[in-house]
Amino acid sequence: LIVIGERLNSTRKAVAEAVEKGDSEYVRGAAEAQVRAGADFLDVNAGTFFDSEPEKLAWMVETVQGAVDVTLSIDSVNAEAVERALEVHRGRALLNSVSGEKGRIEHLAPIIRKHRPRIIALCMDEDGLPDTVERTVLSATRVVDLLAGLGVGQEDIFLDPLIRPIGTDPSFGKLGIDSTAELKKRFPAVKTICGLSNVSFGLPKRRLLNQSYLPMLIAAGLDAVIADTLDRGLMATLRASLALSGSDAYCSSYIKAYRQGLLP
Amino acid sequence: LIVIGERLNSTRKAVAEAVEKGDSEYVRGAAEAQVRAGADFLDVNAGTFFDSEPEKLAWMVETVQGAVDVTLSIDSVNAEAVERALEVHRGRALLNSVSGEKGRIEHLAPIIRKHRPRIIALCMDEDGLPDTVERTVLSATRVVDLLAGLGVGQEDIFLDPLIRPIGTDPSFGKLGIDSTAELKKRFPAVKTICGLSNVSFGLPKRRLLNQSYLPMLIAAGLDAVIADTLDRGLMATLRASLALSGSDAYCSSYIKAYRQGLLP
Repeated sequence: LIVIGERLNSTRKAVAEAVEKGDSEYVRGAAEAQVRAGADFLDVNAGTFFDSEPEKLAWMVETVQGAVDVTLSIDSVNAEAVERALEVHRGRALLNSVSGEKGRIEHLAPIIRKHRPRIIALCMDEDGLPDTVERTVLSATRVVDLLAGLGVGQEDIFLDPLIRPIGTDPSFGKLGIDSTAELKKRFPAVKTICGLSNVSFGLPKRRLLNQSYLPMLIAAGLDAVIADTLDRGLMATLRASLALSGSDAYCSSYIKAYRQGLLP
Repeated sequence: LIVIGERLNSTRKAVAEAVEKGDSEYVRGAAEAQVRAGADFLDVNAGTFFDSEPEKLAWMVETVQGAVDVTLSIDSVNAEAVERALEVHRGRALLNSVSGEKGRIEHLAPIIRKHRPRIIALCMDEDGLPDTVERTVLSATRVVDLLAGLGVGQEDIFLDPLIRPIGTDPSFGKLGIDSTAELKKRFPAVKTICGLSNVSFGLPKRRLLNQSYLPMLIAAGLDAVIADTLDRGLMATLRASLALSGSDAYCSSYIKAYRQGLLP
């Protein structure tokens, strides 16, 4: 499982302040802490800076990669910000996110062709958010085909079925699980990914819900997750779930994590 | 999900002492605490009393049902103990457990015909414990057929795929999940059940593993679980998992549990 740390997001007040002030010490510290806690990649988002997102996001990329040697997930809906970020990113980045909406993908096409990032593709298009497994697959097919037209192979795509809050509709939890399992079947070469915490939006004890949902997704074959790696309970659940799903030979990573005091 | 409280088992030292002394206050208290914490049924086991199991088990049944009005799961491999317990049980009991091993089931046949308990049937026979999903289904077919011969309908059977420790073989976690899902498909009228804590046997932080495994099983369609209802973390995970799997309309039970302070 690839774990993408979600904390360097300007919707978090402390992050917005640090980015505003150019406080590289804070940003480096936040990057290091997430990697230490088990993040493989880090998401960076400066979306709250409406006027200066391109500069701010590029600064975040350079600052974070100055501290930790990991791939960044460039999280922006602003094509100029995406381009600036990809220009300064060392190595091949992950672009978060591309949907099947035609206007959007055409805007990003030249940038994708030029920088060849791996891509988080959303199962969402002109018809909106899918509300059945079959519509999720249809939406996935569209975005995978659009990306193929830009030279992006399935092995470089992370498909996100777009988990929605169970507080809105109690069937959305199961829809996310079933969609993940079905996407794995229909597109064996792609990876599946999700933003875990969406599922609990609007409900009390969100961490409990997120921690209970992650094992379900891992059992369904999830390949990558965007989550808060500083949530020790969540990371312990993640390690236990990998052992339980057979992805941790002889439970050796689990036992190692236990010895390191990582299982509270 | 039917939750069967597992604590009234004579392998627990305090329980053995209470049963030995005839300490009905202790047994009643243990029964009440489990029901208060969310147990629907209670398992009773006096298996460590080699010479006096029938009397001890019958006493447990009467004592527990004197305190709480729930179905008991009669947990014994001793046919005489089973018979005595079923004789004093009020209402229809659950017999835990019957396997497909011929000698065993023939011994229990007259008792089953007479008392008509619902039955926890183990996916296990002369060939031992199954180690693939297909062999689990084969084993289930045998025991379901044997029980049909005794007049037990599928709607009165809880099939237990026999979860085994991932510490023994890392594939056993996935085997338990896949077997549960497949048994639900092949025998739509039966219920699936498991003893949750077997999965973590021999590993550190067993509660963490049990808590991570339960959401996977619930997503796979598990109908009943034998577990420690006094484990508050486990019960919170169970409530969250029901909301996430769509079994809790409008998350109303989850929100109610939150308001009652049941979600730590």
